[in-house]
Amino acid sequence: MMRIALDAMGSDTCPVPDVAGAVLAAREYKDTIILVGDEPRIRAELAKHETSGLSLEVVHASEAVTMEDKASTVGKLKPESSMHVGMNLVKNTQADAFVTAGNTGAALSIATLYTLKRIKGVKRPSLSTVITLNGHSIICADVGANADCKPDWMLQFAIMSSAYARFAFKIDNPRVALLANGEEESKGNELIRESAHLIEASDLNFVGNVEPKDLFKGSVDVVVADGFVGNILIKTMEASTSTLVQVIRQEMMADLPSKLGGLLAKPAFRRVRKAIDPFEIGGAPLLGVDGVVIIGHGRSNANAIKNAIRQARTAVQGNLIAAIREGVSSTAAAASEEL
Amino acid sequence: MMRIALDAMGSDTCPVPDVAGAVLAAREYKDTIILVGDEPRIRAELAKHETSGLSLEVVHASEAVTMEDKASTVGKLKPESSMHVGMNLVKNTQADAFVTAGNTGAALSIATLYTLKRIKGVKRPSLSTVITLNGHSIICADVGANADCKPDWMLQFAIMSSAYARFAFKIDNPRVALLANGEEESKGNELIRESAHLIEASDLNFVGNVEPKDLFKGSVDVVVADGFVGNILIKTMEASTSTLVQVIRQEMMADLPSKLGGLLAKPAFRRVRKAIDPFEIGGAPLLGVDGVVIIGHGRSNANAIKNAIRQARTAVQGNLIAAIREGVSSTAAAASEEL
Repeated sequence: MMRIALDAMGSDTCPVPDVAGAVLAAREYKDTIILVGDEPRIRAELAKHETSGLSLEVVHASEAVTMEDKASTVGKLKPESSMHVGMNLVKNTQADAFVTAGNTGAALSIATLYTLKRIKGVKRPSLSTVITLNGHSIICADVGANADCKPDWMLQFAIMSSAYARFAFKIDNPRVALLANGEEESKGNELIRESAHLIEASDLNFVGNVEPKDLFKGSVDVVVADGFVGNILIKTMEASTSTLVQVIRQEMMADLPSKLGGLLAKPAFRRVRKAIDPFEIGGAPLLGVDGVVIIGHGRSNANAIKNAIRQARTAVQGNLIAAIREGVSSTAAAASEEL
Repeated sequence: MMRIALDAMGSDTCPVPDVAGAVLAAREYKDTIILVGDEPRIRAELAKHETSGLSLEVVHASEAVTMEDKASTVGKLKPESSMHVGMNLVKNTQADAFVTAGNTGAALSIATLYTLKRIKGVKRPSLSTVITLNGHSIICADVGANADCKPDWMLQFAIMSSAYARFAFKIDNPRVALLANGEEESKGNELIRESAHLIEASDLNFVGNVEPKDLFKGSVDVVVADGFVGNILIKTMEASTSTLVQVIRQEMMADLPSKLGGLLAKPAFRRVRKAIDPFEIGGAPLLGVDGVVIIGHGRSNANAIKNAIRQARTAVQGNLIAAIREGVSSTAAAASEEL
């Protein structure tokens, strides 16, 4: 049976949705969920739920990372945070994975520098996220861990995300693309053109450059960008769709027939909302650190927490860490043979 | 009276929408529109319209740029293209501005290297576009002219786009921001952080870094990005909204009440479509070349062509070229004083 550590102090309204999500996950997956954080607050929250027969444990942590904490200093300033404690449970094999809906930058630096550290050979961990829109799912990396990247880091993002796509999407040979301003080989910036050469020379299933519109067409499984561009990509998608939804809502209220039409079309809008709901997926795996870490959205509700836990268990079942270790080391071996 | 040269061979379905747009503009604005391109085809197309009393001229060009032509070679390979001929009309003061819905890269290289050339002191021209969504308009630069940029180019994009925003939006002191992965000063990549220092030290109204969601809030007038990121930004906006519209359309057809609701809500959807219609604006000015050049969308219809012509006349009336010349030279003067 799997043991998954959850940061109870992670989400914006913690520990309410975090604890509720843990209860949902313990019930649905029959795993042990270890709630990490302020023990009295967690116990008080747990008391509000029906937990008999569920495997829920609590591990106390005297500090909590907030959204205001700086990624560069929090690892040093708050060594007893629930993130430290939870990640160390994974490091010491007391848990199989760690899930948090907390500060992404802090999780990255605590994982990389203070607790789990990088898998041997990994140059930079990448934050990879699953984008789903119009029925297609794509893994996008890096979406924010590294603002300035080198081509060999981009190659590793591709390798690690392919390893993740293999079991997350249950496919053998994920199609990998680079995000660019045009499909032609001459397009892209310098980083993209140099990364394309490296990925092309690897044994990944590289399909070339794609533009944003191609991401919605189902022709790609993994799209690689530097952490600055990837972050702009997912934030632009989110802002565009939520703004459009808002415009539609306003216009539907502006005249009587439209208002009535909106009432009748409620089932359709409910399906649309579900199709574009970022919480349906859960969280983003932090790839390249030596342990499964899933980072959820700060605005996660209980269901989103449960889904992030589901992602964590899929990653453990799929043996993500071993797959990344193998992918990174075999590419490194191939590269040194070429020299 | 103004004289505006229009590339009749520009749009994807040229010369049909191009000529129709010219007729609409000549009627509405009472300007002289000079149609540049294959004279027999233009005359044949013009014959389908009621043009009496309108000031329409035709200037023959024996070649036309296509979407397949490479930006790097087309200037040399097709020296008699309608783009060359039209831009030279501006250069020789036979026209006040040039408008095309043709190949953007080709227009950029023909303008910069073969005809109008850069305004003195301009390091790189930028393609600036007006984004309108949710009632707010923003000028975004660069959206594709320069994939790899330097901080001093970014400063000039900000200067040139501010000059454009001043009369396009009729505001005195446009608020300028840099597009980044977070609002904090520590966010951004190296290029953004260095550009922020330069723009901060200039006399522009710099409001700092913004994230994609801030673009829809009306708190910024000009947003600066390198041409790679700016291109990804606008293409992601376009792809996200059009995909969402498609998802909504599918779901509205999937059950009977929703279908009926969709029929009733038609007026609302018409308003939504207008609010997110890229053709409402017209085109993107190519800033930094020594003459007013507006580049429209290849899929432009007659109305989009007319709107691009309107943009061109606004730029001429606002004395865009003089404003850019002054902005660029005064910043250069300030920088050399600091040395």
